[in-house]
This record gives sequence, structure tokens and C-alpha cells, in this order.
Amino acid sequence: MSSADGMSYAPTGKAMPVVEPGRFRFAAIGLKHGHINGMTNGLLEAGGELVWVWDDEPARVEEYKATFPQAKVARSEAEVLEDETIHLVAGADVTARRCELGLRVLAHGKDYLSDKAPFTTLEQLSRAKEAVARTCRIWAVCYSERVQNEAGVYAGELVRDGAVGRVVQVIGMGPHRLRPEGRPEWFFSKELSGGILCDIGSHQIEQFLYYTGARDATVTASRIANYKYADRYPELEDFGDATLVADNGATNYFRVDWFTPDGLGTWGDGRTFILGTDGYIELRKYIDVAREAGGNHVYLVNHEGERHIDVSGKVGFPYFGELILDCLNRTDKAMPQEHTFKAAELCIRAEMQAVRVG
Amino acid sequence: MSSADGMSYAPTGKAMPVVEPGRFRFAAIGLKHGHINGMTNGLLEAGGELVWVWDDEPARVEEYKATFPQAKVARSEAEVLEDETIHLVAGADVTARRCELGLRVLAHGKDYLSDKAPFTTLEQLSRAKEAVARTCRIWAVCYSERVQNEAGVYAGELVRDGAVGRVVQVIGMGPHRLRPEGRPEWFFSKELSGGILCDIGSHQIEQFLYYTGARDATVTASRIANYKYADRYPELEDFGDATLVADNGATNYFRVDWFTPDGLGTWGDGRTFILGTDGYIELRKYIDVAREAGGNHVYLVNHEGERHIDVSGKVGFPYFGELILDCLNRTDKAMPQEHTFKAAELCIRAEMQAVRVG
Repeated sequence: MSSADGMSYAPTGKAMPVVEPGRFRFAAIGLKHGHINGMTNGLLEAGGELVWVWDDEPARVEEYKATFPQAKVARSEAEVLEDETIHLVAGADVTARRCELGLRVLAHGKDYLSDKAPFTTLEQLSRAKEAVARTCRIWAVCYSERVQNEAGVYAGELVRDGAVGRVVQVIGMGPHRLRPEGRPEWFFSKELSGGILCDIGSHQIEQFLYYTGARDATVTASRIANYKYADRYPELEDFGDATLVADNGATNYFRVDWFTPDGLGTWGDGRTFILGTDGYIELRKYIDVAREAGGNHVYLVNHEGERHIDVSGKVGFPYFGELILDCLNRTDKAMPQEHTFKAAELCIRAEMQAVRVG
Repeated sequence: MSSADGMSYAPTGKAMPVVEPGRFRFAAIGLKHGHINGMTNGLLEAGGELVWVWDDEPARVEEYKATFPQAKVARSEAEVLEDETIHLVAGADVTARRCELGLRVLAHGKDYLSDKAPFTTLEQLSRAKEAVARTCRIWAVCYSERVQNEAGVYAGELVRDGAVGRVVQVIGMGPHRLRPEGRPEWFFSKELSGGILCDIGSHQIEQFLYYTGARDATVTASRIANYKYADRYPELEDFGDATLVADNGATNYFRVDWFTPDGLGTWGDGRTFILGTDGYIELRKYIDVAREAGGNHVYLVNHEGERHIDVSGKVGFPYFGELILDCLNRTDKAMPQEHTFKAAELCIRAEMQAVRVG
């Protein structure tokens, strides 16, 4: 797995199967974003059986087969959707098309795991909500910067255990490496990719809602800019930020950008600062810059002292096993549907109301 | 010097005298905040001669004398102000009274070095501006979190050298330890202390303007809260944040709070993140949490690589020497008067327009 850019970041975790082999069958449809590899890893490690793969670009299918040779290449999307033994379809289509794919998946009685961001418009979100209500299927979203980062997972446990008191604020930094030459054309289209706050901002808002336990929030202010690439990629937004306030009084600020410099040892120095009334947590998710090349660093400071906890290989990614069990047991534990959609809604709102500053 | 709380943080730097002994004579008036010690250190290290001390509380004067025995205790403020050999008065009065003190100092033909925040209202600022214009004296403000932190100083050099390209954003975190039992009553009065954004937020806005080279900025949104101490200290604001946009398109977010937990090895884990189009700088100003107890850590990442630079004892605090030379030569180099007042204005505006969230 390459850690040179976020697009090809496909983390592997501890295998923690929650079901017997063959009990949970899934397929991959839509390979437009490299995240599909990480999503597939997560489901496999949790005991899922990868059955089918489909994409309208044969080259994408070949790449996927090289990593996951067990996947059978379907002759059409329909062949996958009509296979009644398939429980869930995982998809990383072009962002603006992820909703349409999900609607087809749910219409065939299956659950859906979408790459983030799941939607680019509120109208898509509203159609998804309607489909979930009608079909009682799951519309899951892989917000990988939390559920596929062990520091992100462990922070949730610390917060639940009260390690920092009442969480009153989350600050997130989500810098990403651009490497424009390796990116497909659609990535540079605002309409197709949704813009920076919708795209990589979605992780940030999900984390804010999660760590503060908020059910809803308001976007106070948001901004976008194209400081560096306006000539080459006029629709790209290379900078975005937003500040939110939650229904429980907690606040959020996050910044996302495409400025990761060449000299950084990974695709982005992602950080999360969780401020509590009795302590704080800092996550250095993918690198401890100029200190350690590996990720998953948790820094905890509370009344007892300062601690650095490297959780690499220690907590895994329980999300995927919980999702498989949700699909099999028709429960809502891995990530409540309401939370999944709220994060998606707020990142679209942040994008819609963003003021351009550069 | 204690680093247990920010109030008594009085950093000492390298002695870098810029004048012959006796050439620059100064006095201390107004000892209500412990910052007066750091301000005095700075002026002494730059070659200033401490002549007088005055405060209306004898206990404060005694404390000061214990640290600076060379200071002669004046019989009244007037005795100091009427001494025509004194070039500058340094003062750390109650925040809301710093302006009145400055007006008296300038009226006596002397320059003034005020603790931050210098003002609590725009009306005070306007009177100060008028006095500066009329008397041609200097109204300096010791924004110590930059000018008395070697990491803060060194970051300015890196930015000027183009180490990170165009600076497009600054994020600041200014957590402080409260230790309420050691604080004077006026600290807990909103009217006298000015509120959290005006008080410790002033450092943050000064840094933003400085590192981005902005001349002006607009407060997009700001918030205050009293999450933890509403019962005991109803006028305290234990949390504040603000986001700004500068006239040159650069943006800022900062958070300040009084939540530093007992277990942290210093009074606050102050951080500054300077984002450029070709790299970024992180300052861990007073501690490298769970790594190193000392401060002044600069992390620089650009296209060349990742670097950790501990600048303790390496760059000193050139501000004070430059200020002394400004006073003697009637120049405006240490910190342009316009910049000094702009930071003061914006922290008042942030406080005035803050929305209460808790």
C-alpha cells in the first residue's frame, strides 16, 4: 500500500472476523477512487467474502483484480445487483454519482457502503434518505479518516471513558498531497468532485459530530480558495475551512488543503485536537512529523499527566465488523444512519455557503 | 521563574545589549499582572537601565523589588513621570486601565510599553491613537507569545526567507492554566480584564497579522463560552475562538481557553501552525508534549523534508533591543505602530461580536 498520496491510502488492520467464512458476501462496484481498496480491506478483515467486481473501465477492474484476485469480474453492473446472495455493495464511484449507484443498490434489496463524500448536493441526500426510509436498507459511508485510523478509533474510546471530561471542541487539520498527474479528470471538476469542503471536509465534520456526541450542528462560517493552482486547475479548491457549532454547545474548526509538501514522509499530516474541560487529546494520524514515520499517535494530557500512546496494530478498525453485523442483524450500531447523513449534509452546507477568499 | 501558569511566565533570553549602560533609562509603573517581570527582563537584557518602580499596592512593589533590587521605589507615580531622564515606562496595570496609564506617560513626553491586551474598548484605542499622533511618542505593546518566544521569533525569519512559500493561513492555539486561587479579583471581571478574546486572544491576532504580512483583517466569526466555571466565576470566559480573513486573502483561526490540565508540565501547550503554499511550520512554544519538557520547538516541513529545530537559547528576543533603538532614534522598526494598534483593535472587535455558545 502506498502512503504517498491519500487517494491510494488503503490501510490494512488486524483481521478481526465477526462471521464465519461465506456468511457475508459483498461486491465492489465503482472503482473511480482508490479508496475502494481500503474499503475492501476493511470488509475482508472483518470476515466478509468478496464475490464480484464491476466498473465500466476495464483498466480499473484489472488494477483491482491485481490486488484482490478472488473477485470475479462481472459482465455488467446488473449481474452483480441481481445476485441475491450479495448482502452489500461497496462503491467508490465519481463523487457526484455515488448517490445514483446507491439508489440502484438499495432498489435491489442490498446494503450500500459508499466512499466519502457520499453526495455533492442536498437533493441527492434527500433522495438517499427517502430510499433508506422506503427500503430499510443501510446507506453506510466509509469516513476513513476516523474509522480506518487506529488513533481515531482509540480517541473515541478515551472520550467515552471520560479521559478529558466534557468535550467542548474539536479542531481538525486535513492536509492532502495533490500529485495532480495521477488524478483523473473528474477530480478537477467542482461539479463531479463536490469541492474541497464536501470532499475531504466530510471526514472532519464526521469526526466533530462523533467526538462531541452531537446530533446536529450549524455551519457558522466557511471559506474556500484556490491559492496555488488557479491557472492549471481553475475549478480546484486547494484550501477550505469551516467553523461549526453543535446542538450541545461544542464547537468545531477544521482546515483542509492540497498543500502537503514533497518533503513530508506521507500524504498528509492529519491532526485532530479534542479539547475537554479536563484534558485534551491530540491525534497525529499518519505521521509524527520529524519524530516517527509511522502513524496512529495519540497524545493524551489530563490531570494525571502527559502520555504518548502509539496505537499502531493495537485497536484495529472495528467499524467494518460492526457494519457487517448491522447488515446481518438489521441493527444500526457501526455508525447510526442519522449520524452518517448528518455529516454528509453539513459538508454540503459548508461548501454551499463558503466564501471565496483566494 | 515559574512556568506553572502564564501569569508568572517571565522568560529570560540571551543578553543582547544594544546600548551602552545608562544610555536608555526606564521605569515600571503598574504591577498588577506578572507580565511586568518578563517585560522588565526583556528591556534589561537589551541594555536598558531600570530606574524606578511604582504601584499603588506596596505588596506588589515589594515583590518586584525582590526580583529587581536595582529599582528605586518612587513616592508617587508623578515622581517617575516627572523624571526627565526616563525614556520609557513599562506597565502591566489592570487591563482596562492600561490606556489611562499610557495617556499619562505620553503626556509626560515618554514612550510606553504596555502589557497586552493594551485596551478593552475601541474608545480607549481611539484615545491612544490620538495621543500618539499628537505627541509622536511610541505606544508599544508586549505581545509576549511571539516576541518572547524563540520559536515565535524564528518562525518569522523562516517566513521572511520564503521557507514555506506564500503564507495563506495561521492557526493558533493558546490554552492557559487558570489556577484561580492565585489570581486577583479584577481578572474575573469582564469589564476590567476585557474578556478572553481581548486578553489572550490579542497574542493570536498579532501573530496572524505578523506571519501573513497583513495590514488589516476582518473578524468573520467569534465565540465565547464559560463551560466549566459559570458557578464560581460567572464573568469568566474559559473558552473563546475566532476566525478572520486578512486584506491579502490569508485566513486565521485561533482558539484560546483556560483548560490547561494539571498534568501538563507547563502553563499551556501553545501552538502555531503557519500554512504556506509550499510548506508549513508548526511551533510547539512552551513544551513538546510527552516528548520534551522545554519549549521553543520549530517543526518545518517543505519540499526539502521534515525538520525539528529546537531554537532554545539560539535566537533570543530581538524585539526589546529594536524597541530601545526605536525610542532613541525615533524609528518604527521593532513593531510598527499601525500593526500594534491593529492587533489591539481586532481582538476588541472579536470580543465585541462574539456569540456565546456555553
